Amino acid sequence: MLVDGRLCYGGDYNPEQWPVEVWRQDVALMRQARVTLVTVGVFAWSRLEPAPGRCDLGWLDQVLDLLHDGGIRVALATPTASPPPWFSLAHPDALPVTADGVRLRHGSRDTYCAAAPAYRAAARRITGVLADRYAHHPALALWHVHNEYGTTCHCPHADAGFRRWLRDRHGDLAGLNDAWTTSFWSQHYSDWAQVGTPRATQYLPNPTQVLDFRRYWSDELLAAYTEQRELLRAANPAVPVTTNYVLGDWVPVDHARWAREVDLVAIDHYPSAAGPEAEEQTALAADLARGWARHGAYHRTGPDPGGRPDAWLLMESAPNLIYTPGRMHTREPGRMARHSLAHVARGSRGAMYFQWRAPRGGAELFHSALVPHAGPDSRVFREAVELGGMLERIAEADAGTVDAPVAVGWDAASGWALQQRGLPTDRLHHHEEVAAAHRALWRAGYACDPVVPGDPLDRYPLLVLPALYLASDATADWVRSYVEGGGHLLVSYLSGIADEHARIRLGGYPGAFRDVLGIRVEEFHPLTDDDRIPLTGGGTGRFWSETVHLAGAAPVHRYAAGVLAGRPAVTRHRYGDGVAWYVSTRPDAATHRALLTDVTRAAGVAPTCPGAPEGVEAVRRRAPGASWLFLFNHTDRAQQVPATGTELLTGTMVEDVLTLPAGQVAVLREPAAG
Amino acid sequence: MLVDGRLCYGGDYNPEQWPVEVWRQDVALMRQARVTLVTVGVFAWSRLEPAPGRCDLGWLDQVLDLLHDGGIRVALATPTASPPPWFSLAHPDALPVTADGVRLRHGSRDTYCAAAPAYRAAARRITGVLADRYAHHPALALWHVHNEYGTTCHCPHADAGFRRWLRDRHGDLAGLNDAWTTSFWSQHYSDWAQVGTPRATQYLPNPTQVLDFRRYWSDELLAAYTEQRELLRAANPAVPVTTNYVLGDWVPVDHARWAREVDLVAIDHYPSAAGPEAEEQTALAADLARGWARHGAYHRTGPDPGGRPDAWLLMESAPNLIYTPGRMHTREPGRMARHSLAHVARGSRGAMYFQWRAPRGGAELFHSALVPHAGPDSRVFREAVELGGMLERIAEADAGTVDAPVAVGWDAASGWALQQRGLPTDRLHHHEEVAAAHRALWRAGYACDPVVPGDPLDRYPLLVLPALYLASDATADWVRSYVEGGGHLLVSYLSGIADEHARIRLGGYPGAFRDVLGIRVEEFHPLTDDDRIPLTGGGTGRFWSETVHLAGAAPVHRYAAGVLAGRPAVTRHRYGDGVAWYVSTRPDAATHRALLTDVTRAAGVAPTCPGAPEGVEAVRRRAPGASWLFLFNHTDRAQQVPATGTELLTGTMVEDVLTLPAGQVAVLREPAAG
Amino acid sequence: MLVDGRLCYGGDYNPEQWPVEVWRQDVALMRQARVTLVTVGVFAWSRLEPAPGRCDLGWLDQVLDLLHDGGIRVALATPTASPPPWFSLAHPDALPVTADGVRLRHGSRDTYCAAAPAYRAAARRITGVLADRYAHHPALALWHVHNEYGTTCHCPHADAGFRRWLRDRHGDLAGLNDAWTTSFWSQHYSDWAQVGTPRATQYLPNPTQVLDFRRYWSDELLAAYTEQRELLRAANPAVPVTTNYVLGDWVPVDHARWAREVDLVAIDHYPSAAGPEAEEQTALAADLARGWARHGAYHRTGPDPGGRPDAWLLMESAPNLIYTPGRMHTREPGRMARHSLAHVARGSRGAMYFQWRAPRGGAELFHSALVPHAGPDSRVFREAVELGGMLERIAEADAGTVDAPVAVGWDAASGWALQQRGLPTDRLHHHEEVAAAHRALWRAGYACDPVVPGDPLDRYPLLVLPALYLASDATADWVRSYVEGGGHLLVSYLSGIADEHARIRLGGYPGAFRDVLGIRVEEFHPLTDDDRIPLTGGGTGRFWSETVHLAGAAPVHRYAAGVLAGRPAVTRHRYGDGVAWYVSTRPDAATHRALLTDVTRAAGVAPTCPGAPEGVEAVRRRAPGASWLFLFNHTDRAQQVPATGTELLTGTMVEDVLTLPAGQVAVLREPAAG
Repeated sequence: MLVDGRLCYGGDYNPEQWPVEVWRQDVALMRQARVTLVTVGVFAWSRLEPAPGRCDLGWLDQVLDLLHDGGIRVALATPTASPPPWFSLAHPDALPVTADGVRLRHGSRDTYCAAAPAYRAAARRITGVLADRYAHHPALALWHVHNEYGTTCHCPHADAGFRRWLRDRHGDLAGLNDAWTTSFWSQHYSDWAQVGTPRATQYLPNPTQVLDFRRYWSDELLAAYTEQRELLRAANPAVPVTTNYVLGDWVPVDHARWAREVDLVAIDHYPSAAGPEAEEQTALAADLARGWARHGAYHRTGPDPGGRPDAWLLMESAPNLIYTPGRMHTREPGRMARHSLAHVARGSRGAMYFQWRAPRGGAELFHSALVPHAGPDSRVFREAVELGGMLERIAEADAGTVDAPVAVGWDAASGWALQQRGLPTDRLHHHEEVAAAHRALWRAGYACDPVVPGDPLDRYPLLVLPALYLASDATADWVRSYVEGGGHLLVSYLSGIADEHARIRLGGYPGAFRDVLGIRVEEFHPLTDDDRIPLTGGGTGRFWSETVHLAGAAPVHRYAAGVLAGRPAVTRHRYGDGVAWYVSTRPDAATHRALLTDVTRAAGVAPTCPGAPEGVEAVRRRAPGASWLFLFNHTDRAQQVPATGTELLTGTMVEDVLTLPAGQVAVLREPAAG
Repeated sequence: MLVDGRLCYGGDYNPEQWPVEVWRQDVALMRQARVTLVTVGVFAWSRLEPAPGRCDLGWLDQVLDLLHDGGIRVALATPTASPPPWFSLAHPDALPVTADGVRLRHGSRDTYCAAAPAYRAAARRITGVLADRYAHHPALALWHVHNEYGTTCHCPHADAGFRRWLRDRHGDLAGLNDAWTTSFWSQHYSDWAQVGTPRATQYLPNPTQVLDFRRYWSDELLAAYTEQRELLRAANPAVPVTTNYVLGDWVPVDHARWAREVDLVAIDHYPSAAGPEAEEQTALAADLARGWARHGAYHRTGPDPGGRPDAWLLMESAPNLIYTPGRMHTREPGRMARHSLAHVARGSRGAMYFQWRAPRGGAELFHSALVPHAGPDSRVFREAVELGGMLERIAEADAGTVDAPVAVGWDAASGWALQQRGLPTDRLHHHEEVAAAHRALWRAGYACDPVVPGDPLDRYPLLVLPALYLASDATADWVRSYVEGGGHLLVSYLSGIADEHARIRLGGYPGAFRDVLGIRVEEFHPLTDDDRIPLTGGGTGRFWSETVHLAGAAPVHRYAAGVLAGRPAVTRHRYGDGVAWYVSTRPDAATHRALLTDVTRAAGVAPTCPGAPEGVEAVRRRAPGASWLFLFNHTDRAQQVPATGTELLTGTMVEDVLTLPAGQVAVLREPAAG
Repeated sequence: MLVDGRLCYGGDYNPEQWPVEVWRQDVALMRQARVTLVTVGVFAWSRLEPAPGRCDLGWLDQVLDLLHDGGIRVALATPTASPPPWFSLAHPDALPVTADGVRLRHGSRDTYCAAAPAYRAAARRITGVLADRYAHHPALALWHVHNEYGTTCHCPHADAGFRRWLRDRHGDLAGLNDAWTTSFWSQHYSDWAQVGTPRATQYLPNPTQVLDFRRYWSDELLAAYTEQRELLRAANPAVPVTTNYVLGDWVPVDHARWAREVDLVAIDHYPSAAGPEAEEQTALAADLARGWARHGAYHRTGPDPGGRPDAWLLMESAPNLIYTPGRMHTREPGRMARHSLAHVARGSRGAMYFQWRAPRGGAELFHSALVPHAGPDSRVFREAVELGGMLERIAEADAGTVDAPVAVGWDAASGWALQQRGLPTDRLHHHEEVAAAHRALWRAGYACDPVVPGDPLDRYPLLVLPALYLASDATADWVRSYVEGGGHLLVSYLSGIADEHARIRLGGYPGAFRDVLGIRVEEFHPLTDDDRIPLTGGGTGRFWSETVHLAGAAPVHRYAAGVLAGRPAVTRHRYGDGVAWYVSTRPDAATHRALLTDVTRAAGVAPTCPGAPEGVEAVRRRAPGASWLFLFNHTDRAQQVPATGTELLTGTMVEDVLTLPAGQVAVLREPAAG
């Protein structure tokens, strides 16, 4: 573990916003809450380097010593997400430019272009200063590079960087013209100088240009990250380095690709909804983080902070108010702990918050905090103290890996490609389709690991591929050999349509998987938001439907009305030693859950906790000779759950049945046979 | 006819996107589908002229020869709608600029300013090259200039062009100041350099400036077209020249004015809705095209490709998926043929599609095609083959002109003027009002010809003027003398309000037509979208209402509630030898249809096919000594239609009553007395 | 009074849009309508100064003489809201720039940056010319500077002006850094050159930067105004000077602050809705104008045009069509007079309209007018003639001041601060909260005076503070000493949260008023638009709720469901000699009204006209030894109102009970004891 055998617990700490007298009070409160780790310095650049090249680190020395004296470890941040005003004034060419060509101004955070040489040089300089000073500080547990890489730019530096990246990818212009299908609309490029970022243009842009720009930009941001990582590693190779992922469809980052370059995957998670949806979002985000971590572990070269291949860290979450468009929503009493433990259950090395102390001013002055505006005499702080104790009591479970028998495909590039304009519908996106499949599995009680095309699949009896729009030949082979070897596969619509350059695979959809699925889709029939198309078997489909021809597969459900009446909607195909299912519409929630239950059963997969009542979530962690069962009662009344073992939070023994109060969590150390 | 006595049938063909081996397969498939005409080269500039001045036409030679050998004629396009990347790099001043001043970038199509001298020169050059090489190629049937002229620009070239155009129109600044009412808001211009395009400004723009800009820009685009036409004509005066109109309120083109300059009006038509609305949109678009064609014929100077004054061509349509905001909709099985024949019935010389073969990549990769991604083994291609046969069997009907007794006014400038900001409502537009009147007539079974103010009216017993907002003195005279001479007239709200410079005609609305209508409107009462105002007689009005004073007219319907209760809503006035009706609100659909039925009856006009059941559309074409009756069953069950003659599609004789299956079309050659 | 013992009545008159022959007709019609005052020259700059420095005033001489001969007084405008095209061409740096950096173009009105030196110089020049020529013209009653100051700019001139203003406010950068909390997100400024206007930036802007920019800009516009005022005053100190306020959340003007610099507060008022809401909006706008006037009177240094501290003037309103988004709405017959008299009742010195004669062209060609497009033979003009007579008959009531026992806090800066991004909800705004409280009081029959923090409160038994988000220490003291001295106070949510720099007052909300209210709010619970949270007592709350802890206060209502069930929602606290109430949610309309009725009763305040039936509005004006009672029947049937006196409009005597017909107004001179 990162912090001396304890789970990480704490949050972003911004002492530069407060006078020194508050610092001592903070450390005392942190000790009261059993905080183990705080992130320091994320937005401190203008305090650390008040003028170009002139650094003032005395206050940070004092803060780190104070924390160290209090027994609190530090994730020390490089402050490069928010360059000081002096930087922007000196380097106007490093301010970001929108797709419309608007040069943005200082006045917020992230006011830089990651491709601008001046920015990169300034970022390396301040990182070097911090590395030199603190790489061996005893409080240092982790380097936290930057914050939420997530901005884009269309300035001339981005144009130049894009061209360099395209040369690497496509070799020459002939390769680029072929990959981008520039024969459409007379876009044949004859000189690299003609190529640029997809700025505002007259009508629909070239979709492969847009896709490649997102790929390039993810790599450009990653280069900005690895530059800093190398400086930090050079100063002390033993300290792990990470950066916190921000989640969202708009994020220009391939999180899986990045997982290969971080020593510990870290995510920020703010559910966009209250109610049951927040639980679903939490489970999905945590599973994604674990999937990225596992993907990274296949490729990792740096220090391994813990020895568990699926370890990651919840780096930011909100104790209370969470921003949603137009209005913040409240995290109800008790939910802070339940959500934090749900992340820990799914592999997080702890639970961190943004932020320790609510700020007095600035742009996010109502962002919630462990010490709110009302001060420590508050529900939130009391719950924070309680959570600190809970995390101590369950720390042993960190040794276990999550036991997930279902793999769900996730692919950043497919997500980007399905955001292009000019598709048959703008209603379907890779991330939402992954979420829909994950939700159906979650509700049915099955644990799943997100996987990236190419990842090893030997541990998974079942692979689910929702809207995997892009599929290279290698991806098609990966799927084919999995099923040939006995794997069970479920593919849904808008998968395998195009190759890695977003070019249609001709001859009938889904070109990459027709043979495995034993079908041929001739036409798409997008549905309106109001359409519900009945299926044989009683359910309905929405959003999408297709003319599916059988080519070896057997029909499971058929469309029961409309122009597709009588045609297959869901099919099953024996292929090699495996079975391949196809779903051509989005089933309603109950049908989706029932279908996935059928498919998992056919694959020989059991739920995590058979017999758990509706609304109780279960996650099992296994280590050699040990297992722990996390149980979450998301309902508003007590539930009986079949379980046996020692409940760590209360220290009680449970035999056969646990009575779990409304809204509560239990963590059982199961008997060795479990 | 254009293509050797056959109807035009085919679509856009883009061989430059495919390897040579596909070309031979294409020709074979075209022959299988009885394709007669394909459009080649629309987006081929970067392949035809890969570098400035260096042309590569060898592949096009090969394509044209291959098509010619297959008996397929060619509409050869000039590729000027999509300049190559090298052009934009060399001439950044020729990239378009938005009203906000954003200079757009290459990366789509249409990335040029039509007023930029460099663009115009480059367009003339490539047009000249094509004219020189292909003007006498035996496959050449038609020149297809450019594609869907429809972009605008606010760059300095546009400013300069606008000033030149304004000098021509208004003579001097005094004329401009008077026409634009610059005495309002202190906008008196004292130097031409002060005048520019209506770029983003602080608040409401001058409406006449906006109107004149749209007029100017239509003329600027037309000049770009005629420049090319002159080069093509000079190379071979026998080959007709056209360009394909794109339809929509946003289009900056006066299609009627342009009809004087094309040898054959051609439109692209993509209904924005599925269901019955698609049928209405099809009928309206086809009637508009015929109306523009007829208007053009009054002024035409070039070659006449067919000798029928109301001939035009459906240049693009979609076999299947049609883009609508947010989602494409499917053309259901059978509808492709029914819509194509509906266009032919209304005067199109055939049915062309965008596109022949679905592309593998590029911005419109899901735009549907006769050969879809699934290949020729597909419903769409089978329907295409079937349609080819149908078009052959009905070709004789092309000799007839459409027999339409009702004229409906259409005026591009009124459409633009009713899009200005600051009107009493932004809910009413000329095009939608024309569509509403057309729909009411269409549902009641009456055929109509769109006419442009000033067109001859002697063939029409009835003239309908919906929202003809602008009326010059000449237009007022045109209407007045029509009614004096015995014509029947129906005018609806927002007609005759302003003169040609969008200046109100004072003293009571509608200033241009008060005398003819025998009314005086004192006040407007715009309605909210939810308002329904009851009328005496049982119907309701929506969107709009008015305080109408009788000044000779008699009330037909009155408002039955609200502040206007008891006041006239619909009036009738005998004037000269004619009758003039006025409608001051939008009647609900049933009331609208009933009203137009009354008006047409009073004018002595009969439906095309009296006795045709609801949902069956009829169009009659007449030639000396012959007539053909097209019948369309838009319902989902068989219908009995009173008709007699030889049904051309099936070759059967019909006596008195035709049984028309659900969704089917019949084309009867009627007995000579018909 | 301004106009020879008569109420002001007339409107904007734009003779420059019409030929001379219309002028004489206008004066005759004005006399027919008993017009007393017209505003001339608002948009005449390009006619007054057709070329830089070359003025043409002959026509204006003629107009003023003609009006004077007709007995009509003139509010002479400086035309600086609409610079001529020649100005924009000569000074492109004086065209405004949006937050995105778009330089706007001429083509509308208000196309200038108020901070541009060239604009200010040109404005002073034309103002000086008018002052020299007309300061002693016998028709001149009032100077009307500019029109609706309301534009912003982000050009370099604005940057420079903003920096100057910030130096004045904050002294040095240390002060600015502290006030703006630049320690958040690394925004520490080390050089004034780094500071600029809040242009488009990457993410959330600094809220205090945005707030200070709005303060600065209000002051910059005010400086533009006072420059002109000084020139006009110097020419003739006896003529009062004003400018017409435009109302709306977007307006970058602190109207109260400006009231200190105008000799007569003047507003333009266009209700955004028809129906009863228009009446509420009218009452609020008129009360606000009177509150601003009263605030100004505490600070006024210039001439006092009338001797009544709460006098103001309705400078613009619409006789008929009023623009609302998407559609204009009609002012129903009779409502023009009723609304005008409602303004007069609340202290306006008369009723002015935009505009006298409807224009023939230009951007606002459908803006309604006293002489509409239809001409004087029209309902509107007939109602205008009638209104002229009514105003003559009630002129004596102008001597009275409005008798309002309730003060309602209004604060421009709180309004701006509550528009910032990143608040817990974007649904709550100061102006809307003031409107909600005003509406509840208005419906309950209580008159109220808007007051600005710091204003004397001795005349008011009750002070209501809705969403007074910002509270300086001085404001906190102002409130505290008011309650200590026996005042009754009602504070609602989002009040006293932050100091004048928008920095949170820590330790529990509302930091500025916790002691007086005897409560401590720990957490906010924003509600969705659909949420309705039940309260004990039967009502519901919406938009907002809070965790309220009692700290001396007693609960009045509690939340009755949800996570706050059982916690206080409304509280009451005895403090010093007074009582302080707190409301933590928005009550439904009935509950809000009942609550305010309880609070006003507890404060010993009676309704204006006890016994007036629902839907009848009453306003009382008092002068030494006299009072007048205005009664408005907003219902659609006759109402019995307890009242006694001489009804001035009809000249009848009323004893005990007045029968007021539907939609009618009565103005009673009450017996001396009244």
